[in-house]
Amino acid sequence: MKKLVLLITILSSVIVSAQTDAETLRTIYTTSLTNGKSYEWLDYLSNQIGGRLSGSLNAEKAVEYTKEELEKLGLDKVWLQPVMVPKWVRGTKEYAFIESGSGSTTTVNICALGGSIATPFGGVKAPVIEVQDFEELKKLGRLNVAGKIVFFNRPMQPDLIQTFEAYGGCVNQRYAGAMEAGKLGAVGVIVRSMNLRLDDLPHTGSMSYGDLPNSQRIPSAAISTNDAEKLSSMLALDKDLKFFFNQTCKQMNDVQSYNVIGEITGSEFPNEYIIVGGHLDSWDLGDGSHDDGAGCVQSMDVLRLLKESGIKPKRSIRVVLFMNEENGLRGATKYAEVAKQKGENHIFSLESDAGGFTPRGFSFDCSDAVFNKIESWRSLFKPYLIHYFEKGGSGADVGPLKTDTNVCAGLRPDSQRYFDHHHAANDTFEHVNKRELELGAATMTSLVYLIDKYGISPISNNEELKD
Amino acid sequence: MKKLVLLITILSSVIVSAQTDAETLRTIYTTSLTNGKSYEWLDYLSNQIGGRLSGSLNAEKAVEYTKEELEKLGLDKVWLQPVMVPKWVRGTKEYAFIESGSGSTTTVNICALGGSIATPFGGVKAPVIEVQDFEELKKLGRLNVAGKIVFFNRPMQPDLIQTFEAYGGCVNQRYAGAMEAGKLGAVGVIVRSMNLRLDDLPHTGSMSYGDLPNSQRIPSAAISTNDAEKLSSMLALDKDLKFFFNQTCKQMNDVQSYNVIGEITGSEFPNEYIIVGGHLDSWDLGDGSHDDGAGCVQSMDVLRLLKESGIKPKRSIRVVLFMNEENGLRGATKYAEVAKQKGENHIFSLESDAGGFTPRGFSFDCSDAVFNKIESWRSLFKPYLIHYFEKGGSGADVGPLKTDTNVCAGLRPDSQRYFDHHHAANDTFEHVNKRELELGAATMTSLVYLIDKYGISPISNNEELKD
Repeated sequence: MKKLVLLITILSSVIVSAQTDAETLRTIYTTSLTNGKSYEWLDYLSNQIGGRLSGSLNAEKAVEYTKEELEKLGLDKVWLQPVMVPKWVRGTKEYAFIESGSGSTTTVNICALGGSIATPFGGVKAPVIEVQDFEELKKLGRLNVAGKIVFFNRPMQPDLIQTFEAYGGCVNQRYAGAMEAGKLGAVGVIVRSMNLRLDDLPHTGSMSYGDLPNSQRIPSAAISTNDAEKLSSMLALDKDLKFFFNQTCKQMNDVQSYNVIGEITGSEFPNEYIIVGGHLDSWDLGDGSHDDGAGCVQSMDVLRLLKESGIKPKRSIRVVLFMNEENGLRGATKYAEVAKQKGENHIFSLESDAGGFTPRGFSFDCSDAVFNKIESWRSLFKPYLIHYFEKGGSGADVGPLKTDTNVCAGLRPDSQRYFDHHHAANDTFEHVNKRELELGAATMTSLVYLIDKYGISPISNNEELKD
Repeated sequence: MKKLVLLITILSSVIVSAQTDAETLRTIYTTSLTNGKSYEWLDYLSNQIGGRLSGSLNAEKAVEYTKEELEKLGLDKVWLQPVMVPKWVRGTKEYAFIESGSGSTTTVNICALGGSIATPFGGVKAPVIEVQDFEELKKLGRLNVAGKIVFFNRPMQPDLIQTFEAYGGCVNQRYAGAMEAGKLGAVGVIVRSMNLRLDDLPHTGSMSYGDLPNSQRIPSAAISTNDAEKLSSMLALDKDLKFFFNQTCKQMNDVQSYNVIGEITGSEFPNEYIIVGGHLDSWDLGDGSHDDGAGCVQSMDVLRLLKESGIKPKRSIRVVLFMNEENGLRGATKYAEVAKQKGENHIFSLESDAGGFTPRGFSFDCSDAVFNKIESWRSLFKPYLIHYFEKGGSGADVGPLKTDTNVCAGLRPDSQRYFDHHHAANDTFEHVNKRELELGAATMTSLVYLIDKYGISPISNNEELKD
């Protein structure tokens, strides 16, 4: 009989708790869709500030603005965490053309890759050699590569459903193309933009020379997908054509910048930290609305939506707006370093850095046991069409926080349009849909609510039964 | 022992069949994403033809174009099915302003609703009464309504996750607002656009006077959401303001038009029909890319993708491009009538008429037994992030085909952005993403492939075991 009573008590507690969670999620989503702030914040970040390259004036303005906005929310703490960041500047607008064997020229759209050196004063002109990958480049060898501009033209694979996989399969051309071509004596590198569409916009992004000596460092630029197709077909007809490009970008000395952090201190377990974040810096061609203004304003709204929904977290919830994800990851590295120094026990770190599109779910970097626990909440998300719960990568900025006990996760929005805008001049506010952005904020808030309530380790699974 | 052998035979047949289906779906998706035609067709329909209002020259051009394109596919049959359709014309651009008590005017954006009569020559000007719904209107009664312009201002409910539900909760204002207000002696109707965004674009759509006598028929127009907010707040401050609008739209005599039909005749069960379709007509303000150019080109590509993937259907597969969904449903009615006359056994009818956005799944109008059978294929769709399999409505054009044995279904794409564009000047090609459109076509093709292979009735569930 005692056992039966206990069973009934446990069962009804579970039922009540399930009802309450469903109701709480409904409150969170309704609040986000009818009284969200993410879209208004993004409007300001995008249209009043604009692109926020690390070390730029705009990045500093974004630090000030988001700190002020967080201060208005009545959080327990808001502060800036100092971090030195690289400062790379684009210089004057890049210029490029294809020159045929007969001397006629065709202008094409390029942009310098972030971290690239400038061309020699007045630009560089050289014959072009097209390759698909580093293997092909190495087979060609110094004899065929020296003195030339190497054109990396491997497209993103269109039949991959998850566009981030297609990106992952191509991005080494952009990141290391100049390093590999420089070793073989090339004089410049042109990389097909990481874009699944055919259009006229070049997409920038980070590149590195590794520890290549200065003498082997060569300028590298991205070319639009339409112009990559054009260059490739012109090359097929005219092996003697030359490519000219001019860029005046420059790496400056590191400058002082900041991560922006806000916290609701936990009522029961203040030294257990749950963080939500995105990166405040962006590339400079667009206004960084999807990458990653969206993730920043959604993360800010997670703390606000918790408060607006009357939720008082047991654990400490932090929003972290990381500086310098795009070209250095200095903010994330600094945050993890300070957290370690202070012995802060981070139990869950959620990043939103895949665009402000309709949320589909999350991917988790964690043990099977923890994943199974989180996945048991799946049905709570069904009314919101959140269906994607998978083990996998989380995000660049939460990466340095990964430990055996900290679960890292990434919001997974619909990714089909993301690379149309990624790092290009059309990553702008009008391409973010208000509802999609707000649904993302609500989805993040809901998961944070559940993690805070039930804890993250499989052992703390039974916490609700203690109540 | 015999039983065991039979079991092993059955099991291995099921496993082989499952593998083959997974591979076939992979082929279908890859073909659509690398060699699809839907986007190219939509480009022509949208940019070379444009908006395709029933009875218009553009609608006729679209009939000719799609017939020619289907003829190029090497189908077994392509034909036009004649149908008389209503012809309503918008006339000159509508014009409207708010006139304050003191006589100052503010121009606002309106458009006539499809089917509305014109205003009296030179326009109509009258005091305004704002209501949320028909109940409020009826309570106000003739005394308060006669001689006035009724302003229906109930917004779409933003906290509903499925935007079609929010649409369903509002659209009676647009469809029947003029009928209800006309009965009470109003002189005009202005309806808040069915749009979840605040912007400046009025959204048209069908309206009806029912069997109201001509003397009670009053002109009705949609107003942009921004201007609906403006009118409402100005009214709150100035009850004496007047609204002026002028529109010259007109209902003409019915004209001859056509459904466009193509067929792959089934190799085993030619009198079992599976159809896929969308509607070829559209409203006139945009180019009808999402509504429903997308559904048409996806449906056309279903037949092409089956052929390209080397699938030879057992049953007859038809694409039907219905004419006049928007303001009459004459094409759908005619198609169902002819199908019945000819005794064609339609077993499955799939409609795509919810925009060309990322597909999420399907809704089915069918028995539990059939639904369970279809849902058993869910895991085949998981790699393509297709997760939504629910019982529910199908679509307007397949509705007249509903019988006890015909299963009706609708493709369900992500709906968050749909009503930003629906029936407005920004329903245009650049708002359709190529990959999203192609994923929709592949998703439809995959379901048609499975239905063709396994049949639809729970009884024919065992067909594969006969092979």
